[in-house]
Amino acid sequence: MLALSHSQSRASLLIKTLVQPRGPGHGARALGSTRSYTAGSLKINAARMMDSLHETCKWGAAHPYGSGPTETGMSRLTLDDNDFKARRWLAKEAESLGCTTKVDKMGNMFMFRPGKHQGHATAVGSHLDTQPTGGRYDGILGIHAALEAFRTIHENKLQTEYPLCLVNWTNEEGARFPKSITGSSVWNGDLALDKAWALQDVKDASITMRDELERGGFLGDVEASYESNPLAAHFELHIEQGPILESTGKKVGIVQGGQAYRWIDVNVHGRDCHTGSTPFETRSDAMLCASRIIVESNRIAKEHGGLASTGILRLSPGSVNTCPGHVFFTLDIRHPSTERLAALTSAIEARSRAVAGTGSERGCRLEWLETFHSPAVEFHPDCISSVREAVEANYGAESGIDVFSGAGHDTCATSKRCPSSMVFITSRDGVSHNPLEYSSPEDCAIGAQVLMDAALVYDARRTA
Amino acid sequence: MLALSHSQSRASLLIKTLVQPRGPGHGARALGSTRSYTAGSLKINAARMMDSLHETCKWGAAHPYGSGPTETGMSRLTLDDNDFKARRWLAKEAESLGCTTKVDKMGNMFMFRPGKHQGHATAVGSHLDTQPTGGRYDGILGIHAALEAFRTIHENKLQTEYPLCLVNWTNEEGARFPKSITGSSVWNGDLALDKAWALQDVKDASITMRDELERGGFLGDVEASYESNPLAAHFELHIEQGPILESTGKKVGIVQGGQAYRWIDVNVHGRDCHTGSTPFETRSDAMLCASRIIVESNRIAKEHGGLASTGILRLSPGSVNTCPGHVFFTLDIRHPSTERLAALTSAIEARSRAVAGTGSERGCRLEWLETFHSPAVEFHPDCISSVREAVEANYGAESGIDVFSGAGHDTCATSKRCPSSMVFITSRDGVSHNPLEYSSPEDCAIGAQVLMDAALVYDARRTA
Repeated sequence: MLALSHSQSRASLLIKTLVQPRGPGHGARALGSTRSYTAGSLKINAARMMDSLHETCKWGAAHPYGSGPTETGMSRLTLDDNDFKARRWLAKEAESLGCTTKVDKMGNMFMFRPGKHQGHATAVGSHLDTQPTGGRYDGILGIHAALEAFRTIHENKLQTEYPLCLVNWTNEEGARFPKSITGSSVWNGDLALDKAWALQDVKDASITMRDELERGGFLGDVEASYESNPLAAHFELHIEQGPILESTGKKVGIVQGGQAYRWIDVNVHGRDCHTGSTPFETRSDAMLCASRIIVESNRIAKEHGGLASTGILRLSPGSVNTCPGHVFFTLDIRHPSTERLAALTSAIEARSRAVAGTGSERGCRLEWLETFHSPAVEFHPDCISSVREAVEANYGAESGIDVFSGAGHDTCATSKRCPSSMVFITSRDGVSHNPLEYSSPEDCAIGAQVLMDAALVYDARRTA
Repeated sequence: MLALSHSQSRASLLIKTLVQPRGPGHGARALGSTRSYTAGSLKINAARMMDSLHETCKWGAAHPYGSGPTETGMSRLTLDDNDFKARRWLAKEAESLGCTTKVDKMGNMFMFRPGKHQGHATAVGSHLDTQPTGGRYDGILGIHAALEAFRTIHENKLQTEYPLCLVNWTNEEGARFPKSITGSSVWNGDLALDKAWALQDVKDASITMRDELERGGFLGDVEASYESNPLAAHFELHIEQGPILESTGKKVGIVQGGQAYRWIDVNVHGRDCHTGSTPFETRSDAMLCASRIIVESNRIAKEHGGLASTGILRLSPGSVNTCPGHVFFTLDIRHPSTERLAALTSAIEARSRAVAGTGSERGCRLEWLETFHSPAVEFHPDCISSVREAVEANYGAESGIDVFSGAGHDTCATSKRCPSSMVFITSRDGVSHNPLEYSSPEDCAIGAQVLMDAALVYDARRTA
């Protein structure tokens, strides 16, 4: 174990105040300090990285918001033709740096660069796919920073202790095939391969993910499994997709783990009625009931120090002069603590049932179905400390801040099977999943430098 | 003017407590009391009426809810093949009773029965079209009650003073061609003929209302105009579509007029953000903002003795883990008084702007667009008093209750151009626009008897 040097601060609910030590059985490997890489001794080439990033965004560029060539968002959906072009380009680039590419049955791409010793690789990875109205940084920056690290290591002829691996995970976004973090969830054993293969294109149910893997030549023969294809560690650079770094003026988020979250499908069954002829006291207005629940879920989440959000809502029948008899909506409820999330969720459910059942109107019937539960993820102290060392060596301790990830990432999946951590950089206005998503070239460079150094520090200290 | 005998009571906000006398210029004709028809001297044949109603509901029967032959709802959309069949049947029945049919350019059907004197006809009418998930009574009962009145008058060889007219108005529901009360609004001059003709089938924009009028043979050559084709008065029987009669135990609603209402399109512009990585204080969550406005509109409407309802809501982008950046929803705001509706609407708008602009989050931008305004309608005292006399003569004064219509009806349109009023009967549970819509045969018979007698009383007292 490396000694941890905590420069903790607390900017928001998303920031974890203490790194919990891991118990045994998490796959931690002891790090030694006998070998020699010093963070900051290699410097990435920021201009080269940004050129590659923007050049390859021609595959999927969409939603221009300005006249400049990089002033567009992206729509590079998993396994579409643009994704295939970006994937082939990436493999070719990595191979030009001496890497060997393996593609697994989920299309996850692993580009290995040999080290001095045999052993599992220290990986740096992210994803090339985007949301349909996405930006140029979410996922894409993580891949390009990893590639830039490989280029820098290659041109400096640095021989790492163990192999490195650049990973492009399939369908992190879950936008075209509706399950996020798909490739890494098959790899870590959370999701069965056949279920992932059977995912259907949201716009054309006749097309499955397996069809598209095959069409693009990315249906590999390596098992999509941490057992057949293990990694020693996984690091990922990602834009924060939130406002903490910007609001605190810090440059790097040293990510401690991911929030716990639960997704709930709520169905409110009332009764259609005429808006003109039905006095309030005889209504069972599902839309009014749903609105009250959404307002209450917000209030209760604030009280509990968590989050609650409604992203989807559909009603029927949908006529100006008919009170809806049925409303479906989603609740996305989050908290850094798995246990406190459970308490928050119970409180919202209880209040929702009270809102539906009573009040001045006749009431509605409520169906409450949890569709997804992701417990809190705690990243590995060895990986976190490698990131911290990279931050401190390059930019000083005061430039980093310990944060918790609000979003899910492939690294949340890998962390179940190998030591993992992440590096966050500033997102302008916290905007993401939006064409206006933006991180400055300076911030992208900081992130890439920290990513490379974290991986190299980790590699240098590994004892196996 | 007939002497008014008010047996006013107040069961809800929808009930008007005083009938306002009309000023001059509304087209009222003085009623005399020299002629002889006495309400209750003819009796309608309830069984015959219900047989016809259910028999002709074979044209459009849908959404069965039980095993009995009449236990279905209806889907008889304006100018579909079922509507054509029902229309042709109606004309044939009326003609078998000595009527002459005129069809105007909107497909409004006028079936005239001669009286002793030349003159404009006293009309009884409603509509044969239904909602796609409608019932067997909304509109349909009004037509069958009018036909039953004609049958009763015919078999009793009653010669009215002036002509009677049975009217079937086109597209009252506005379900297939999205504008309600279309035919009578062209007739009364509120809606231009070419705009009505150009209305497109909501499911197939290549089909216009004019196309379908032509296809069915209902593109008549009579101008759709109260000037070319005037009526002396218009009476309509309708189900209440609300809970007042049921809750008060009264049998007949003596309708004083229609509520004022306004329709508002509300657009809330916030900013898409990730549900996990965005603390509340930096969000502009359009869905939360919309929910608060809906809850507040309900509260404010209660305070003002009016109604506010949201029947349509759409959001984007529509992903579980993205707070919506945009929400569109409708507000339907009603009050029996035009002036108090204006005050209520202003109060809701002001509060909505406050909710959008302030609060703990960053706020959203609000667009508020009024798309429709229907001032309060006051029915004609001569028609109201004819209905009241019909109720008192047949069932006693205590069986009637003065009510305001919460919904729009063709009679609200005719009342702008000729003395008009309506008769309401009980709707079970206030359910309408729903296959379960139901009124008992006994209540249907009461309504038909009152409708016939109101028209005959009016006819007998007319002086021109």
